[in-house]
Amino acid sequence: MTSVPAPTLPDGRLVTDADVALAYATDASLGSAAPDNFLVVRARDRDDVVAVLEHAQAHRIPVVPQGARTSLCGAAGALQDGIVLNVESLKSVEVIADEKYAVVGPGVINADLKKAVAEYGLAYPPDPASGPMSTIGGNIATNAGGLCCVKYGVTGDYVKGLEVVLPGGEIIHTGHRTAKGVTGLDLTGVFVGSEGQLGVVTEALVRLVPASDPPLTVLATFGSLEAVAAALVRLRAERHGPNLIEVLDRTSLQAVQAMDDFGFPEDAEAVLLVQSDRSGHTQEDVARYAELLTQAGADEVAVADDAQEADALMAGRRALALAVEKMGPHFIEDVCVPVSKLGDLIARSRALCEERGVQILLSGHGGDGNLHPCLFFSDEPGRERAEEAFGLIVETALSMGGTVTGEHGVGSLKRQWLPQELGDAEMARQRAVRAVFDPHGIMNPGRPY
Amino acid sequence: MTSVPAPTLPDGRLVTDADVALAYATDASLGSAAPDNFLVVRARDRDDVVAVLEHAQAHRIPVVPQGARTSLCGAAGALQDGIVLNVESLKSVEVIADEKYAVVGPGVINADLKKAVAEYGLAYPPDPASGPMSTIGGNIATNAGGLCCVKYGVTGDYVKGLEVVLPGGEIIHTGHRTAKGVTGLDLTGVFVGSEGQLGVVTEALVRLVPASDPPLTVLATFGSLEAVAAALVRLRAERHGPNLIEVLDRTSLQAVQAMDDFGFPEDAEAVLLVQSDRSGHTQEDVARYAELLTQAGADEVAVADDAQEADALMAGRRALALAVEKMGPHFIEDVCVPVSKLGDLIARSRALCEERGVQILLSGHGGDGNLHPCLFFSDEPGRERAEEAFGLIVETALSMGGTVTGEHGVGSLKRQWLPQELGDAEMARQRAVRAVFDPHGIMNPGRPY
Repeated sequence: MTSVPAPTLPDGRLVTDADVALAYATDASLGSAAPDNFLVVRARDRDDVVAVLEHAQAHRIPVVPQGARTSLCGAAGALQDGIVLNVESLKSVEVIADEKYAVVGPGVINADLKKAVAEYGLAYPPDPASGPMSTIGGNIATNAGGLCCVKYGVTGDYVKGLEVVLPGGEIIHTGHRTAKGVTGLDLTGVFVGSEGQLGVVTEALVRLVPASDPPLTVLATFGSLEAVAAALVRLRAERHGPNLIEVLDRTSLQAVQAMDDFGFPEDAEAVLLVQSDRSGHTQEDVARYAELLTQAGADEVAVADDAQEADALMAGRRALALAVEKMGPHFIEDVCVPVSKLGDLIARSRALCEERGVQILLSGHGGDGNLHPCLFFSDEPGRERAEEAFGLIVETALSMGGTVTGEHGVGSLKRQWLPQELGDAEMARQRAVRAVFDPHGIMNPGRPY
Repeated sequence: MTSVPAPTLPDGRLVTDADVALAYATDASLGSAAPDNFLVVRARDRDDVVAVLEHAQAHRIPVVPQGARTSLCGAAGALQDGIVLNVESLKSVEVIADEKYAVVGPGVINADLKKAVAEYGLAYPPDPASGPMSTIGGNIATNAGGLCCVKYGVTGDYVKGLEVVLPGGEIIHTGHRTAKGVTGLDLTGVFVGSEGQLGVVTEALVRLVPASDPPLTVLATFGSLEAVAAALVRLRAERHGPNLIEVLDRTSLQAVQAMDDFGFPEDAEAVLLVQSDRSGHTQEDVARYAELLTQAGADEVAVADDAQEADALMAGRRALALAVEKMGPHFIEDVCVPVSKLGDLIARSRALCEERGVQILLSGHGGDGNLHPCLFFSDEPGRERAEEAFGLIVETALSMGGTVTGEHGVGSLKRQWLPQELGDAEMARQRAVRAVFDPHGIMNPGRPY
């Protein structure tokens, strides 16, 4: 199966079954495919990670660190010959409730961490839509966003410190266990979002906050996405803003409802899901949001004021990724623009697709200006048209002061736009900082830098 | 006055009056003194900063960037021959209210920024005790903490992006103007807290949040600092925690009251100031805190439920720095430990001072485990004893899993403990990251790295 020299590891780490290995060599991105020569190591502890990175550096073998492989930007599959280093088995969780942090392994599933800390009346807010599947290590590697960022921020806002194994096997610790601390440059922040290109996180200190009230949800239906965009600007200006503002277009609603009846209207042009989890004020807030949404032009506004109905709506929102998968081959966008530009971005994205006969499905984290249009194709000419539209949407977002990726990462799929967004001076510094940690460029090569 | 070669600058930038120059060559730290040869440049815009950093790199001249020179750790005064580059005049403020951020010059005073954004119903939370004097540039350079961190976090939590002039004069931009964005390694975070050793910030994008309610304040008096520490742990466990938890010992209270009558009791062993600014719940919260403080052993608990009384208490707390100055020469500590260890740290700090006959004044941001004991001396033997106690308090904090500086920075005064806290592997990486931006080591040499 491979000519890559194997590291010396205890039994059971090296995957010997070719079919199993193949599954680890790909991720959830479009076009993810395994190279000819690769090894898969399933690490069980830090020592395994050290052994792999010692060996890989000595032999200059590329290493792709990975967790649950839910990457949508081509960041976690094997891109070239080398070693795939899976850390899903590093699943320890220790909650230091008095100090409001937890020490977790990179393989802990996001949703499992939430459950573990809930027992202490605490919460770990970051909630990528992949939360029931994706790992904390992957969330850190991509600085994952999610649904509640509009109130709570992103993964990086909750990472206090890291244990990282560097290429060559050296172990470093970053950050502080105290509430404050200003010794040293912030290397924690450098590792968060580095897409596996600096080292392998083997332990993370994540900040916890007191649990909020269970959220209440407003569902508003709209006759146009432009009206939705106008409503978003008004919601953002609220003093007691929502913890979640999700937008789904008609195609999204139909896709989700085709999976199961989650309670979404299929005949609306678009819906907004808006939540409040503000302690003691959820009823008051959703009533206020409902009024505001009506004023902004919503056709119908319904408050899901029992938990079951609200849960169903959120389950539907989370089912969208799977629903999209079932619709066939597609590009998934992850652009983010200033919130006040979101209406323009929506209109221009639709026009770009319409002009090219490309089917578009539009959803996203409206409150952050973070959109995930999906562009579908069924044959090679269709793929080319979708790819062209994909690129033009990225360019449009950049021209609005936006970014090519709000939360999925750059990976291999958006690498071409990185220098355009960052500029030459910034790219040079990015690469130089990377070289401090990975001088031989063995970590996840072919990804962003 | 100097043999340092002067950069070519428009009229009025170079300080020619020797007395004025001397004032710029020192900061608020103990032992701050001017070197023999230095130039002071008061930059008026980015071009001036570029000109100085081009010149300085070409001639390998050390540059000390500075704002209001309130540094307590020896980070902003001229340490050796070179150029002092003051950026206090870069005072622009542009509020982008719809997107909840502001674009500010490094010379903007913290308190002035708060006022400017308040007009939009927004708040910039970071509030170092030096807020009425210190600049945003200095706050960023030190990743300044303050009084409200227990709820709102520190300066770095509010910096979205930076414009930085690097040694040699190159300009880079970091971060994103969008709510989310994951392109590139987080260089913004690297600059925040870098103590002027990487480049000079000429513009900052700072995140704003909706304004809170005016806070209400509880003042609780205690018979011992150990009882205070126990109360802190209970306060931290509250679901709706305070936005401020300050501790002042008897010596602090007497020092403040000697300045003016701020309403503090002078006969208490210690007091806790505890605030709530939770919208719509300040009355409820302070009543709850008052009950909890009484249960925790407070002798007297009073709620300052009118704004004037509350303001007086906060003014008193902020006057402490000046009151301490008036008490004579002293070392000021800035250690931070896990909150559950704070009681131990207090007891051991006092014992270390008592054994050596050193007067100690104790105050700090109790809710963060961040203490600022002041150790006084009046003659050289006293100074040696105070210095020894200072070092032993640092060592004690480190042994508790704490840090040598919670918010003031390392500067020149705490540099000796940095390798001990960070470790050799981490120090090597810190220095290598610094060298990416400042390869010739001209930026603030003699400070942390």
